[in-house]
Amino acid sequence: MNIPVLIEEKVKKEINDFCKSLPKEPQELYEPMRYMLLLGGKNLRPSLLLLTCKMLGGKINDAVPPAIAIELFHNFTLIHDDVTDNSPLRRGKPTVYKKWNLNVALLSGDALLIKSYQELSKTPAKYLAQIFQLFNEAALKVCEGQQFDMNYEKQIKVTIDDYLKMISMKTAALFSASMGMGAILAGASKSDCNKMKIVGESLGMLFQLKDDMLDVFGESAQTGKQIGGDIIQDKKTFLLLKAFELAKGKTKAEITLLIGNTEISPAEKVQRVKKIYEVLGVEEIANKQMEMYYAKAKKSLASIKTPEKDILLALTGTLLERKK
Amino acid sequence: MNIPVLIEEKVKKEINDFCKSLPKEPQELYEPMRYMLLLGGKNLRPSLLLLTCKMLGGKINDAVPPAIAIELFHNFTLIHDDVTDNSPLRRGKPTVYKKWNLNVALLSGDALLIKSYQELSKTPAKYLAQIFQLFNEAALKVCEGQQFDMNYEKQIKVTIDDYLKMISMKTAALFSASMGMGAILAGASKSDCNKMKIVGESLGMLFQLKDDMLDVFGESAQTGKQIGGDIIQDKKTFLLLKAFELAKGKTKAEITLLIGNTEISPAEKVQRVKKIYEVLGVEEIANKQMEMYYAKAKKSLASIKTPEKDILLALTGTLLERKK
Repeated sequence: MNIPVLIEEKVKKEINDFCKSLPKEPQELYEPMRYMLLLGGKNLRPSLLLLTCKMLGGKINDAVPPAIAIELFHNFTLIHDDVTDNSPLRRGKPTVYKKWNLNVALLSGDALLIKSYQELSKTPAKYLAQIFQLFNEAALKVCEGQQFDMNYEKQIKVTIDDYLKMISMKTAALFSASMGMGAILAGASKSDCNKMKIVGESLGMLFQLKDDMLDVFGESAQTGKQIGGDIIQDKKTFLLLKAFELAKGKTKAEITLLIGNTEISPAEKVQRVKKIYEVLGVEEIANKQMEMYYAKAKKSLASIKTPEKDILLALTGTLLERKK
Repeated sequence: MNIPVLIEEKVKKEINDFCKSLPKEPQELYEPMRYMLLLGGKNLRPSLLLLTCKMLGGKINDAVPPAIAIELFHNFTLIHDDVTDNSPLRRGKPTVYKKWNLNVALLSGDALLIKSYQELSKTPAKYLAQIFQLFNEAALKVCEGQQFDMNYEKQIKVTIDDYLKMISMKTAALFSASMGMGAILAGASKSDCNKMKIVGESLGMLFQLKDDMLDVFGESAQTGKQIGGDIIQDKKTFLLLKAFELAKGKTKAEITLLIGNTEISPAEKVQRVKKIYEVLGVEEIANKQMEMYYAKAKKSLASIKTPEKDILLALTGTLLERKK
């Protein structure tokens, strides 16, 4: 990540201060929040919010409460998603669900969502109604996206369009809202706010596609995840859906054999699916799709008047290149 | 319940309209919300909010969005609490958790909480910041209260004071916020808003104690619940804690024997615990405690200038007498 250091430090400090401000009791409610928030996330969404606000001439301090709110919201979704996915690990450490239990994950997640709104309520009064509305819309989209994601796991026929729509809700909506909120808080025009929302949306899509790629083509030491985890779990990612779309004859037979197959060892399954990806060139196709989102972000930024948009373009570039 | 019919009908209609306004898809997200909201709850909290607003000279329509928000919030807590308590039935029908599954209960509950904030965001701009803040404070108290409730299940020594503090958070905080919000939306003075919060808090305490009583001394046909459910589950209610506090000698031995006992049949356990309650007169003590809250509500109402406070007093009276 190439977030300007000042912004990165600011977000870190504010998250730390938030954690310190949490009550001690009941411990089962507040300790998991602190644990999750200090687990070493990238704080990408709040950083984008502050960066957008600054770029468009706003006051960073005005934007801190909604930026923290966005990060708390994101962490609430992680706590509950780890229950849904029955995930043992997050960022290489036990999930709240596994470190504590279902009831703790459920209730501390709920309370974190409420805390997120409590931070949001500290938004300067002038912008509160607008920010509140945008936040709610994005939050609902995230839930809808998560539900579609769950549905697609069981659904046999899922198209690339279904998938892209799903990640636009589950992931990109919060990126879009982050940058839209940054623009609102800088007092930008409605048109510029909408443009920044498109930039955020494109960044979010790019971010998620890169996530899918890193799962297969990344380095475990850098990502902190098991390589091929999505393949082992038969997750319908962009790569797998594209492979399904393109495969014919023998390749089609091979991929059909591998998906849902629990008889082959995980290592062999990953290796054979990767081979198919290679044969069909899905890595290049995914790269092109990502470049399309990069171009979209760039185009949307083009007409915005700020001398500092290069920072954002550089950042978008690093999202394309990221290793973790 | 003796909520004035006009208010009751208004709330019902608004809840119905809200349900109709929900999207169809994803069905697993929105169908459980509709199911829960139309399960036949008493809509007590939103009714109290509208009633308070009207009593203090406010416009009911201004108060509808936060009233709906409070009811949505309440239903969100029910969906998640039924997971925590592994409850099969709610109002005589399967809980969301049992009718669907954990993931549906988790995510539709989350989305309902967000929908609740989305309704709240429709509060007239003039009152938004104040309403938002009060709502968040109450929402967090509800979560903290729920956590203390869970902790007390495992904790051996729980005092009556612990219990009263817990229900003041888990139950009374939302009643208090409902009436406080009603007052704010009527443009009442800060002092009157605080008085109405105390009335709401007292009503909430009274409501919860009556719930404990109905569990033991009510009629199944009216409450829609299994009589003695709390006794069978060894729930540390006001009655049980009071009995523990007062019991001596043989009675102490008997109650100690019964609690946590899974060898005695549920029917016998209920009957023997009820016998102890009779011997120790805990029903009368609980009645006195409830009358204390009634007096507190009355005192807090006394200095508020409205010709219509009798409606509220009558309502408080019916909460004391309710059979379900």
